[in-house]
Amino acid sequence: MIDQVVNIAAVTVLGVLEQAYFSLQVIYARRKYSVSPPSTSGPPEFERVFRAQANCSEYFPIFITILWVTGLFFSQAIASLCGLLYLYGRLMYFQGYSESAHGRLAPLYFSAKVLWVMIGLSAVGVLNSMCQLYLGLDTLQYLSGLLVD
Amino acid sequence: MIDQVVNIAAVTVLGVLEQAYFSLQVIYARRKYSVSPPSTSGPPEFERVFRAQANCSEYFPIFITILWVTGLFFSQAIASLCGLLYLYGRLMYFQGYSESAHGRLAPLYFSAKVLWVMIGLSAVGVLNSMCQLYLGLDTLQYLSGLLVD
Amino acid sequence: MIDQVVNIAAVTVLGVLEQAYFSLQVIYARRKYSVSPPSTSGPPEFERVFRAQANCSEYFPIFITILWVTGLFFSQAIASLCGLLYLYGRLMYFQGYSESAHGRLAPLYFSAKVLWVMIGLSAVGVLNSMCQLYLGLDTLQYLSGLLVD
Repeated sequence: MIDQVVNIAAVTVLGVLEQAYFSLQVIYARRKYSVSPPSTSGPPEFERVFRAQANCSEYFPIFITILWVTGLFFSQAIASLCGLLYLYGRLMYFQGYSESAHGRLAPLYFSAKVLWVMIGLSAVGVLNSMCQLYLGLDTLQYLSGLLVD
Repeated sequence: MIDQVVNIAAVTVLGVLEQAYFSLQVIYARRKYSVSPPSTSGPPEFERVFRAQANCSEYFPIFITILWVTGLFFSQAIASLCGLLYLYGRLMYFQGYSESAHGRLAPLYFSAKVLWVMIGLSAVGVLNSMCQLYLGLDTLQYLSGLLVD
Repeated sequence: MIDQVVNIAAVTVLGVLEQAYFSLQVIYARRKYSVSPPSTSGPPEFERVFRAQANCSEYFPIFITILWVTGLFFSQAIASLCGLLYLYGRLMYFQGYSESAHGRLAPLYFSAKVLWVMIGLSAVGVLNSMCQLYLGLDTLQYLSGLLVD
Protein backbone atom coordinates (compact mmCIF):
# COMPACT_ATOMS: atom_id res chain seq x y z
CA MET A 1 0.00 0.00 0.00
CA ILE A 2 2.73 2.46 1.08
CA ASP A 3 4.66 1.65 -2.15
CA GLN A 4 1.64 2.72 -4.20
CA VAL A 5 1.52 6.20 -2.67
CA VAL A 6 5.10 7.09 -1.66
CA ASN A 7 5.73 9.27 -4.73
CA ILE A 8 2.47 11.20 -4.38
CA ALA A 9 3.28 11.59 -0.66
CA ALA A 10 6.63 13.12 -1.68
CA VAL A 11 4.87 15.55 -4.07
CA THR A 12 2.43 16.33 -1.21
CA VAL A 13 5.27 17.28 1.15
CA LEU A 14 6.80 19.46 -1.60
CA GLY A 15 3.39 21.14 -2.05
CA VAL A 16 3.18 21.88 1.69
CA LEU A 17 6.70 23.35 1.61
CA GLU A 18 5.67 25.58 -1.33
CA GLN A 19 2.62 26.82 0.61
CA ALA A 20 4.88 27.54 3.62
CA TYR A 21 7.16 29.56 1.32
CA PHE A 22 4.17 31.59 0.00
CA SER A 23 2.98 32.26 3.58
CA LEU A 24 6.44 33.55 4.54
CA GLN A 25 6.38 35.89 1.52
CA VAL A 26 3.10 37.41 2.77
CA ILE A 27 4.69 37.97 6.22
CA TYR A 28 7.67 39.73 4.57
CA ALA A 29 5.32 41.82 2.40
CA ARG A 30 3.30 42.83 5.50
CA ARG A 31 6.54 44.12 7.09
CA LYS A 32 7.85 45.79 3.92
CA TYR A 33 4.60 47.69 3.19
CA SER A 34 3.61 48.16 6.89
CA VAL A 35 0.24 46.38 6.63
CA SER A 36 -0.55 45.06 10.14
CA PRO A 37 -3.07 42.25 10.70
CA PRO A 38 -6.09 42.05 10.67
CA SER A 39 -5.99 44.51 7.72
CA THR A 40 -5.55 42.96 4.28
CA SER A 41 -5.68 46.20 2.28
CA GLY A 42 -2.62 48.15 1.32
CA PRO A 43 -0.57 49.26 -1.70
CA PRO A 44 -1.11 47.16 -4.88
CA GLU A 45 2.33 45.55 -4.38
CA PHE A 46 1.16 44.11 -1.06
CA GLU A 47 -2.33 43.17 -2.31
CA ARG A 48 -0.87 41.22 -5.24
CA VAL A 49 1.33 39.11 -2.94
CA PHE A 50 -1.61 38.64 -0.55
CA ARG A 51 -4.01 37.60 -3.33
CA ALA A 52 -1.40 35.33 -4.96
CA GLN A 53 -1.00 33.44 -1.68
CA ALA A 54 -4.79 33.40 -1.07
CA ASN A 55 -5.40 31.97 -4.55
CA CYS A 56 -2.72 29.27 -4.12
CA SER A 57 -4.14 28.37 -0.68
CA GLU A 58 -7.64 28.14 -2.12
CA TYR A 59 -6.50 25.69 -4.81
CA PHE A 60 -4.21 23.69 -2.49
CA PRO A 61 -6.92 21.32 -1.11
CA ILE A 62 -8.33 20.77 -4.62
CA PHE A 63 -4.84 19.98 -5.89
CA ILE A 64 -4.01 17.56 -3.03
CA THR A 65 -7.40 15.83 -3.35
CA ILE A 66 -7.13 15.32 -7.10
CA LEU A 67 -3.43 14.33 -6.85
CA TRP A 68 -4.30 11.44 -4.52
CA VAL A 69 -7.40 10.32 -6.46
CA THR A 70 -5.38 10.34 -9.72
CA GLY A 71 -2.52 8.48 -8.00
CA LEU A 72 -4.78 5.83 -6.45
CA PHE A 73 -7.17 5.29 -9.39
CA PHE A 74 -5.18 6.13 -12.53
CA SER A 75 -1.38 6.01 -12.17
CA GLN A 76 0.99 7.04 -9.41
CA ALA A 77 3.76 7.94 -11.87
CA ILE A 78 1.56 10.21 -14.02
CA ALA A 79 -0.07 11.79 -10.94
CA SER A 80 3.36 12.61 -9.44
CA LEU A 81 4.62 14.07 -12.73
CA CYS A 82 1.48 16.24 -13.14
CA GLY A 83 1.81 17.25 -9.47
CA LEU A 84 5.38 18.47 -10.01
CA LEU A 85 4.31 20.43 -13.10
CA TYR A 86 1.43 22.00 -11.15
CA LEU A 87 3.71 23.04 -8.26
CA TYR A 88 6.19 24.54 -10.76
CA GLY A 89 3.33 26.46 -12.43
CA ARG A 90 2.16 27.79 -9.05
CA LEU A 91 5.69 29.02 -8.22
CA MET A 92 5.82 30.89 -11.56
CA TYR A 93 2.30 32.24 -10.88
CA PHE A 94 3.29 33.54 -7.43
CA GLN A 95 6.44 35.23 -8.75
CA GLY A 96 4.61 36.64 -11.79
CA TYR A 97 1.69 38.00 -9.72
CA SER A 98 4.12 39.57 -7.20
CA GLU A 99 5.55 41.62 -10.08
CA SER A 100 2.34 42.57 -11.93
CA ALA A 101 -1.32 41.55 -12.25
CA HIS A 102 -0.63 40.66 -15.89
CA GLY A 103 2.36 38.49 -14.96
CA ARG A 104 0.06 36.00 -13.21
CA LEU A 105 -1.88 35.06 -16.35
CA ALA A 106 0.42 32.73 -18.35
CA PRO A 107 1.42 30.51 -15.36
CA LEU A 108 -2.20 30.59 -14.09
CA TYR A 109 -3.44 29.17 -17.40
CA PHE A 110 -0.62 26.60 -17.34
CA SER A 111 -1.39 25.35 -13.81
CA ALA A 112 -5.15 25.36 -14.58
CA LYS A 113 -4.48 23.16 -17.65
CA VAL A 114 -2.42 20.72 -15.57
CA LEU A 115 -5.20 20.61 -12.97
CA TRP A 116 -7.82 19.91 -15.67
CA VAL A 117 -5.65 17.06 -17.02
CA MET A 118 -5.49 15.59 -13.50
CA ILE A 119 -9.27 16.01 -13.03
CA GLY A 120 -9.81 14.21 -16.36
CA LEU A 121 -7.42 11.37 -15.48
CA SER A 122 -8.92 10.92 -11.99
CA ALA A 123 -12.43 10.79 -13.50
CA VAL A 124 -11.28 8.16 -16.03
CA GLY A 125 -9.58 6.15 -13.27
CA VAL A 126 -12.57 6.26 -10.92
CA LEU A 127 -15.06 5.43 -13.72
CA ASN A 128 -12.84 2.52 -14.77
CA SER A 129 -12.74 1.18 -11.19
CA MET A 130 -16.54 1.49 -10.97
CA CYS A 131 -16.95 -0.40 -14.27
CA GLN A 132 -14.61 -3.11 -12.96
CA LEU A 133 -16.41 -3.36 -9.64
CA TYR A 134 -20.05 -3.14 -10.75
CA LEU A 135 -19.94 -4.39 -14.36
CA GLY A 136 -16.84 -6.60 -14.31
CA LEU A 137 -15.26 -4.65 -17.18
CA ASP A 138 -11.66 -3.41 -17.12
CA THR A 139 -11.97 -0.71 -19.80
CA LEU A 140 -8.47 0.75 -19.33
CA GLN A 141 -6.81 -2.67 -19.63
CA TYR A 142 -8.94 -3.42 -22.71
CA LEU A 143 -7.95 -0.13 -24.36
CA SER A 144 -4.24 -0.58 -23.58
CA GLY A 145 -4.58 -4.14 -24.96
CA LEU A 146 -5.89 -2.67 -28.23
CA LEU A 147 -2.87 -0.33 -28.41
CA VAL A 148 -0.40 -3.20 -27.87
CA ASP A 149 -2.00 -5.54 -30.45
CA MET B 1 -9.03 -1.43 -0.53
CA ILE B 2 -9.91 0.42 -3.78
CA ASP B 3 -13.40 -1.17 -3.69
CA GLN B 4 -14.00 0.34 -0.25
CA VAL B 5 -13.39 3.90 -1.45
CA VAL B 6 -14.39 4.01 -5.14
CA ASN B 7 -17.78 5.62 -4.47
CA ILE B 8 -16.38 8.29 -2.17
CA ALA B 9 -13.66 8.90 -4.76
CA ALA B 10 -16.42 9.46 -7.35
CA VAL B 11 -18.16 11.96 -5.02
CA THR B 12 -14.75 13.61 -4.48
CA VAL B 13 -14.26 14.11 -8.24
CA LEU B 14 -17.80 15.54 -8.49
CA GLY B 15 -16.97 17.92 -5.63
CA VAL B 16 -13.84 19.10 -7.43
CA LEU B 17 -15.86 19.69 -10.62
CA GLU B 18 -18.38 21.75 -8.61
CA GLN B 19 -15.57 23.89 -7.16
CA ALA B 20 -14.21 24.37 -10.71
CA TYR B 21 -17.69 25.53 -11.80
CA PHE B 22 -17.85 28.05 -8.92
CA SER B 23 -14.37 29.38 -9.79
CA LEU B 24 -15.43 29.89 -13.42
CA GLN B 25 -18.51 31.82 -12.22
CA VAL B 26 -16.23 34.22 -10.29
CA ILE B 27 -14.14 34.77 -13.43
CA TYR B 28 -17.31 35.56 -15.43
CA ALA B 29 -18.55 37.90 -12.65
CA ARG B 30 -15.18 39.72 -12.64
CA ARG B 31 -15.58 40.35 -16.39
CA LYS B 32 -19.28 41.29 -16.18
CA TYR B 33 -18.80 43.81 -13.35
CA SER B 34 -15.28 44.93 -14.43
CA VAL B 35 -13.53 43.99 -11.17
CA SER B 36 -9.88 43.31 -12.03
CA PRO B 37 -7.62 41.26 -9.73
CA PRO B 38 -6.20 41.81 -7.12
CA SER B 39 -9.31 43.81 -6.12
CA THR B 40 -12.13 41.81 -4.52
CA SER B 41 -14.50 44.76 -3.92
CA GLY B 42 -17.19 45.80 -6.34
CA PRO B 43 -20.95 46.00 -6.75
CA PRO B 44 -22.97 43.74 -4.37
CA GLU B 45 -23.79 41.41 -7.32
CA PHE B 46 -20.08 40.70 -7.75
CA GLU B 47 -19.34 40.49 -4.00
CA ARG B 48 -22.10 37.93 -3.49
CA VAL B 49 -20.70 35.62 -6.19
CA PHE B 50 -17.18 36.16 -4.81
CA ARG B 51 -18.22 35.41 -1.20
CA ALA B 52 -20.34 32.41 -2.27
CA GLN B 53 -17.30 30.86 -3.94
CA ALA B 54 -15.02 31.81 -1.02
CA ASN B 55 -17.41 30.17 1.46
CA CYS B 56 -17.70 26.98 -0.63
CA SER B 57 -13.89 26.86 -1.00
CA GLU B 58 -13.45 27.30 2.76
CA TYR B 59 -15.75 24.36 3.49
CA PHE B 60 -14.39 22.15 0.68
CA PRO B 61 -11.43 20.68 2.67
CA ILE B 62 -13.67 20.08 5.71
CA PHE B 63 -16.21 18.33 3.49
CA ILE B 64 -13.62 16.12 1.73
CA THR B 65 -11.93 15.22 5.03
CA ILE B 66 -15.17 14.24 6.75
CA LEU B 67 -16.45 12.43 3.63
CA TRP B 68 -13.42 10.12 3.65
CA VAL B 69 -13.40 9.56 7.43
CA THR B 70 -17.13 8.73 7.33
CA GLY B 71 -16.58 6.46 4.31
CA LEU B 72 -13.63 4.62 5.87
CA PHE B 73 -14.93 4.31 9.46
CA PHE B 74 -18.73 4.29 9.20
CA SER B 75 -20.16 3.31 5.80
CA GLN B 76 -19.12 4.04 2.24
CA ALA B 77 -22.72 3.98 0.97
CA ILE B 78 -24.03 6.45 3.58
CA ALA B 79 -20.97 8.70 3.19
CA SER B 80 -21.45 8.85 -0.60
CA LEU B 81 -25.16 9.61 -0.26
CA CYS B 82 -24.54 12.39 2.28
CA GLY B 83 -21.77 13.68 0.02
CA LEU B 84 -24.14 13.95 -2.94
CA LEU B 85 -26.73 15.76 -0.78
CA TYR B 86 -24.06 18.18 0.46
CA LEU B 87 -22.87 18.96 -3.08
CA TYR B 88 -26.49 19.52 -4.18
CA GLY B 89 -27.01 21.87 -1.18
CA ARG B 90 -23.87 23.82 -2.10
CA LEU B 91 -25.06 24.24 -5.70
CA MET B 92 -28.39 25.64 -4.43
CA TYR B 93 -26.47 27.88 -1.98
CA PHE B 94 -24.26 29.27 -4.75
CA GLN B 95 -27.21 30.00 -7.04
CA GLY B 96 -29.28 31.45 -4.16
CA TYR B 97 -26.45 33.70 -2.93
CA SER B 98 -25.75 34.92 -6.49
CA GLU B 99 -29.33 36.23 -6.60
CA SER B 100 -29.63 37.70 -3.08
CA ALA B 101 -27.97 37.55 0.35
CA HIS B 102 -31.22 36.11 1.72
CA GLY B 103 -31.35 33.42 -0.97
CA ARG B 104 -28.26 31.76 0.49
CA LEU B 105 -29.84 30.96 3.87
CA ALA B 106 -32.13 27.94 3.27
CA PRO B 107 -29.54 25.89 1.27
CA LEU B 108 -26.79 26.99 3.70
CA TYR B 109 -28.73 25.54 6.64
CA PHE B 110 -29.43 22.39 4.59
CA SER B 111 -25.78 21.78 3.69
CA ALA B 112 -24.70 22.59 7.27
CA LYS B 113 -27.15 19.97 8.57
CA VAL B 114 -25.81 17.36 6.14
CA LEU B 115 -22.26 18.22 7.24
CA TRP B 116 -23.21 17.86 10.93
CA VAL B 117 -24.75 14.44 10.19
CA MET B 118 -21.48 13.39 8.52
CA ILE B 119 -19.41 14.75 11.44
CA GLY B 120 -21.61 12.76 13.85
CA LEU B 121 -21.36 9.55 11.80
CA SER B 122 -17.58 9.89 11.39
CA ALA B 123 -17.20 10.42 15.17
CA VAL B 124 -19.35 7.31 15.84
CA GLY B 125 -17.34 5.29 13.31
CA VAL B 126 -13.95 6.37 14.68
CA LEU B 127 -15.01 5.84 18.33
CA ASN B 128 -16.31 2.39 17.40
CA SER B 129 -13.00 1.49 15.72
CA MET B 130 -11.11 2.72 18.81
CA CYS B 131 -13.36 0.59 21.11
CA GLN B 132 -12.72 -2.41 18.85
CA LEU B 133 -8.96 -1.85 18.77
CA TYR B 134 -8.28 -0.91 22.39
CA LEU B 135 -11.16 -2.55 24.28
CA GLY B 136 -12.06 -5.41 21.94
CA LEU B 137 -15.69 -4.26 21.73
CA ASP B 138 -17.59 -3.89 18.44
CA THR B 139 -20.32 -1.52 19.63
CA LEU B 140 -21.86 -0.86 16.22
CA GLN B 141 -22.16 -4.56 15.40
CA TYR B 142 -23.64 -5.17 18.89
CA LEU B 143 -26.24 -2.42 18.39
CA SER B 144 -27.20 -3.60 14.89
CA GLY B 145 -27.47 -7.13 16.36
CA LEU B 146 -30.00 -5.78 18.89
CA LEU B 147 -32.04 -4.23 16.06
CA VAL B 148 -32.12 -7.48 14.10
CA ASP B 149 -33.07 -9.65 17.10
CA MET C 1 -5.02 -0.69 7.63
CA ILE C 2 -7.79 0.93 9.73
CA ASP C 3 -5.75 0.24 12.91
CA GLN C 4 -2.85 2.24 11.47
CA VAL C 5 -4.94 5.38 11.00
CA VAL C 6 -7.67 5.30 13.68
CA ASN C 7 -5.86 7.74 15.99
CA ILE C 8 -5.12 10.25 13.24
CA ALA C 9 -8.74 9.88 12.13
CA ALA C 10 -9.80 10.79 15.70
CA VAL C 11 -7.53 13.88 15.64
CA THR C 12 -9.01 14.71 12.21
CA VAL C 13 -12.58 14.66 13.58
CA LEU C 14 -11.45 16.85 16.52
CA GLY C 15 -9.90 19.26 14.01
CA VAL C 16 -13.16 19.45 12.05
CA LEU C 17 -15.08 20.14 15.28
CA GLU C 18 -12.64 22.95 16.10
CA GLN C 19 -13.17 24.50 12.66
CA ALA C 20 -16.94 24.24 13.19
CA TYR C 21 -16.53 26.07 16.54
CA PHE C 22 -14.51 28.86 14.84
CA SER C 23 -17.17 29.21 12.10
CA LEU C 24 -19.90 29.56 14.74
CA GLN C 25 -17.86 32.30 16.47
CA VAL C 26 -17.79 34.27 13.18
CA ILE C 27 -21.57 33.94 12.90
CA TYR C 28 -21.98 35.24 16.48
CA ALA C 29 -19.53 38.10 15.77
CA ARG C 30 -21.49 39.04 12.61
CA ARG C 31 -24.64 39.33 14.73
CA LYS C 32 -22.97 41.15 17.63
CA TYR C 33 -21.29 43.77 15.42
CA SER C 34 -24.09 43.88 12.78
CA VAL C 35 -21.89 42.92 9.81
CA SER C 36 -24.19 41.30 7.24
CA PRO C 37 -22.81 39.06 4.49
CA PRO C 38 -21.33 39.54 1.88
CA SER C 39 -19.48 42.33 3.73
CA THR C 40 -16.36 41.27 5.64
CA SER C 41 -15.39 44.74 6.88
CA GLY C 42 -16.46 46.12 10.23
CA PRO C 43 -15.11 47.16 13.61
CA PRO C 44 -11.64 45.75 14.49
CA GLU C 45 -13.29 43.38 17.03
CA PHE C 46 -15.21 41.74 14.17
CA GLU C 47 -12.31 41.79 11.72
CA ARG C 48 -10.01 40.04 14.22
CA VAL C 49 -12.50 37.17 14.73
CA PHE C 50 -13.04 36.99 10.95
CA ARG C 51 -9.31 36.93 10.17
CA ALA C 52 -8.60 34.43 12.97
CA GLN C 53 -11.12 32.02 11.45
CA ALA C 54 -9.87 32.72 7.89
CA ASN C 55 -6.27 31.99 8.95
CA CYS C 56 -7.24 28.75 10.73
CA SER C 57 -9.30 27.67 7.68
CA GLU C 58 -6.38 28.43 5.37
CA TYR C 59 -4.03 26.22 7.42
CA PHE C 60 -6.60 23.45 8.00
CA PRO C 61 -5.95 21.54 4.71
CA ILE C 62 -2.17 21.86 5.19
CA PHE C 63 -2.52 20.52 8.74
CA ILE C 64 -4.75 17.58 7.75
CA THR C 65 -2.50 16.69 4.79
CA ILE C 66 0.69 16.71 6.84
CA LEU C 67 -1.00 14.91 9.79
CA TRP C 68 -1.89 11.97 7.54
CA VAL C 69 1.46 11.85 5.71
CA THR C 70 3.30 11.93 9.08
CA GLY C 71 0.96 9.26 10.47
CA LEU C 72 1.31 6.96 7.45
CA PHE C 73 5.05 7.39 6.81
CA PHE C 74 6.60 8.24 10.18
CA SER C 75 4.57 7.26 13.25
CA GLN C 76 0.86 7.32 14.02
CA ALA C 77 1.47 7.97 17.75
CA ILE C 78 3.78 10.95 17.17
CA ALA C 79 1.53 12.35 14.42
CA SER C 80 -1.53 12.17 16.70
CA LEU C 81 0.32 13.83 19.58
CA CYS C 82 1.62 16.65 17.35
CA GLY C 83 -1.90 16.99 15.93
CA LEU C 84 -3.39 17.48 19.38
CA LEU C 85 -0.73 20.09 20.24
CA TYR C 86 -1.43 21.91 16.98
CA LEU C 87 -5.20 21.98 17.61
CA TYR C 88 -4.57 23.27 21.16
CA GLY C 89 -2.28 25.99 19.75
CA ARG C 90 -4.96 27.01 17.22
CA LEU C 91 -7.58 27.31 19.97
CA MET C 92 -5.25 29.59 21.96
CA TYR C 93 -4.54 31.56 18.75
CA PHE C 94 -8.23 32.06 18.04
CA GLN C 95 -8.97 33.20 21.58
CA GLY C 96 -5.88 35.44 21.68
CA TYR C 97 -6.61 37.06 18.30
CA SER C 98 -10.25 37.67 19.30
CA GLU C 99 -8.97 39.79 22.19
CA SER C 100 -6.13 41.69 20.47
CA ALA C 101 -3.93 41.53 17.36
CA HIS C 102 -0.92 41.08 19.67
CA GLY C 103 -2.58 38.19 21.54
CA ARG C 104 -2.41 36.02 18.44
CA LEU C 105 1.39 36.01 18.22
CA ALA C 106 2.59 33.58 20.93
CA PRO C 107 0.12 30.76 20.04
CA LEU C 108 0.69 31.43 16.32
CA TYR C 109 4.43 30.84 16.74
CA PHE C 110 3.69 27.74 18.84
CA SER C 111 1.34 26.16 16.27
CA ALA C 112 3.73 27.11 13.43
CA LYS C 113 6.57 25.31 15.27
CA VAL C 114 4.43 22.19 15.74
CA LEU C 115 3.53 22.29 12.03
CA TRP C 116 7.23 22.60 11.05
CA VAL C 117 8.05 19.59 13.26
CA MET C 118 5.32 17.59 11.48
CA ILE C 119 6.57 18.75 8.04
CA GLY C 120 10.10 17.63 9.03
CA LEU C 121 8.91 14.24 10.32
CA SER C 122 6.74 13.61 7.25
CA ALA C 123 9.69 14.48 4.96
CA VAL C 124 11.95 12.07 6.92
CA GLY C 125 9.27 9.35 6.78
CA VAL C 126 8.64 9.74 3.04
CA LEU C 127 12.38 9.89 2.20
CA ASN C 128 12.95 6.77 4.32
CA SER C 129 10.16 4.93 2.45
CA MET C 130 11.68 6.01 -0.88
CA CYS C 131 15.14 4.74 0.20
CA GLN C 132 13.56 1.45 1.24
CA LEU C 133 11.62 1.09 -2.01
CA TYR C 134 14.21 2.26 -4.54
CA LEU C 135 17.55 1.58 -2.78
CA GLY C 136 16.57 -1.25 -0.42
CA LEU C 137 17.83 0.74 2.61
CA ASP C 138 15.81 1.15 5.81
CA THR C 139 17.61 4.22 7.19
CA LEU C 140 15.24 4.81 10.12
CA GLN C 141 15.49 1.21 11.30
CA TYR C 142 19.30 1.37 10.93
CA LEU C 143 19.47 4.58 12.99
CA SER C 144 17.17 3.24 15.73
CA GLY C 145 19.34 0.08 15.73
CA LEU C 146 22.40 2.27 16.42
CA LEU C 147 20.61 3.90 19.36
CA VAL C 148 19.66 0.55 20.86
CA ASP C 149 23.16 -0.98 20.54
